[in-house]
Amino acid sequence: MVTIRDVAKYANVSVATVSRVLNNKGQVSEETKRNVREAIEHLKYRPNLVARTLYKKTSSMIGLIVPDITNPFFPALARTVEDRARSYGYTVILCNTDGSTEKEADYISSLQQKGIDGIIISTNRSEADDFKDIDIPLVALDRIVNSEIPTVTAENKNGAIKATKHLIDVGCQKVVHIQGPRELATTNDRKDGFLEVVQEADIEHVVVEADFDIKVAEETAYQLLQEQTNIDGFFAGSDVIALGIIKAAHRLGLNIPEDLQIVGFDGIEMGKIFIPSLTTIEQPIYEMGALAVDLLSQQIEKKELDKHLYEFPINLVIGNTTKR
Amino acid sequence: MVTIRDVAKYANVSVATVSRVLNNKGQVSEETKRNVREAIEHLKYRPNLVARTLYKKTSSMIGLIVPDITNPFFPALARTVEDRARSYGYTVILCNTDGSTEKEADYISSLQQKGIDGIIISTNRSEADDFKDIDIPLVALDRIVNSEIPTVTAENKNGAIKATKHLIDVGCQKVVHIQGPRELATTNDRKDGFLEVVQEADIEHVVVEADFDIKVAEETAYQLLQEQTNIDGFFAGSDVIALGIIKAAHRLGLNIPEDLQIVGFDGIEMGKIFIPSLTTIEQPIYEMGALAVDLLSQQIEKKELDKHLYEFPINLVIGNTTKR
Repeated sequence: MVTIRDVAKYANVSVATVSRVLNNKGQVSEETKRNVREAIEHLKYRPNLVARTLYKKTSSMIGLIVPDITNPFFPALARTVEDRARSYGYTVILCNTDGSTEKEADYISSLQQKGIDGIIISTNRSEADDFKDIDIPLVALDRIVNSEIPTVTAENKNGAIKATKHLIDVGCQKVVHIQGPRELATTNDRKDGFLEVVQEADIEHVVVEADFDIKVAEETAYQLLQEQTNIDGFFAGSDVIALGIIKAAHRLGLNIPEDLQIVGFDGIEMGKIFIPSLTTIEQPIYEMGALAVDLLSQQIEKKELDKHLYEFPINLVIGNTTKR
Repeated sequence: MVTIRDVAKYANVSVATVSRVLNNKGQVSEETKRNVREAIEHLKYRPNLVARTLYKKTSSMIGLIVPDITNPFFPALARTVEDRARSYGYTVILCNTDGSTEKEADYISSLQQKGIDGIIISTNRSEADDFKDIDIPLVALDRIVNSEIPTVTAENKNGAIKATKHLIDVGCQKVVHIQGPRELATTNDRKDGFLEVVQEADIEHVVVEADFDIKVAEETAYQLLQEQTNIDGFFAGSDVIALGIIKAAHRLGLNIPEDLQIVGFDGIEMGKIFIPSLTTIEQPIYEMGALAVDLLSQQIEKKELDKHLYEFPINLVIGNTTKR
């Protein structure tokens, strides 16, 4: 357990100074503030309850809006958000929009009416204008809405670059990228990373779009594999899409990884469990969900945020869908 | 769309009578009430918004408490509860207890403080006494708490009987049942069904306990398959347990269904997607979640319930983990 003393020691300041920075009270130089915040971030220090209760909460409820609770990525995210929220004394209202903009708008207005303290948004809606009228704290998680809403995401482009390079390293010569919905900045970043690598390596390639849905992905991959010859690699826009590709390969009697190699994106538990286990780009889901709650809580407590965009590093995890 | 007219016609009464039954107002004979309710159930009629708003809601929020949101059964359940709740104008607060009795108690008290209208409970807590002090409407979903709390469940024992008979039909001679936590009435019902069949058929059998957790189930199955010879069938207490058994078989180089046959319980989407796809006992998840919301809503609107225990029929779905 990291204490305020550890932070003070690391930042080479007094405990009182750390407390002033935490509570945004008293005079502290910008440089000292930065040092303390870096120490907090580095040590992963979480202010204790006493510090937190300095702020009187209105409802002690925060909302988490997800597009599809049956996509395993979101329960994992919901669980981490809920875990962290609990440490702040918040109850989480989970709202599932099923990808419907109308439902999302309904939820946002109903949550505001209920005096909710803040909302974490992980949905597909990308019209920045829609969020203009919301006057409660917001955090965008795994989605980029606009530059004014604090955003927690992963290095999507860099992840795609790693994934695509890996496919080339293991010998792929014609690679398909099935991307998620084009409305999402995150999926376009992944596509850009893919294109950068295949174009530079001068590798034959195809980009198609699918939903983050196993069945849609399966059908998309099935058709492509029937229509086009020589496809030997897939970079999937998400693990759910990758599972759909495995299903399609299975239906066509293709062996993985001998005939077809696949890299996913997300690092969901089901990808590890699946047979064959997925090679994938792992996002640090726990850390991302936790930071989203921290940023929301800081806004609720009227603290200033150091920055608005937090991009987490990603990891290539080798499973059995690519050759070793 | 079924209307109040359809119900009246089916029950052979006037629309006004149906309305009286729906609103629990005016004089209606017990027999007529029963006919109308049967018609409503048979036609799956849902009272419209006008009827519903006759009751003034306090918070328009209901709680759904689940033990593990990362177990795919619960997101599916949460989605259906949320869908149905939305049709009543309720927002759902989803609470994930991670199997902790303490968290569950915290959630229940915090939900009550927030003036929630009612709670649907799908958790592992089985101490009926713990629910004595709760003075808001409750529904137990896929769990049996006590006879006073309206309960929506599936024919667990019957499902287990079907599953076990199927394993014998396809030639199994030594069958293992990995049951879920013993604290749950539902898992014990499944175990009872299993025992009834294997004892009557005089088949060699083993019963062990595991959590509803893929890794725990995998380790349990792995040890059993190493320690005991001739095991050729598993009846898993849930689909998640069945996926763990497949993983264990895979690690040991056993072929499914040639060497080992497996039947699950639940009918989660991942069981259909998995390779091999699961043979399982399918619960009507959508109908169960919807009815739980209906029963909660009826209690919130101070309507009398016809009965307290609703057991849904189940289906044996043949996948690729048993021989055809």
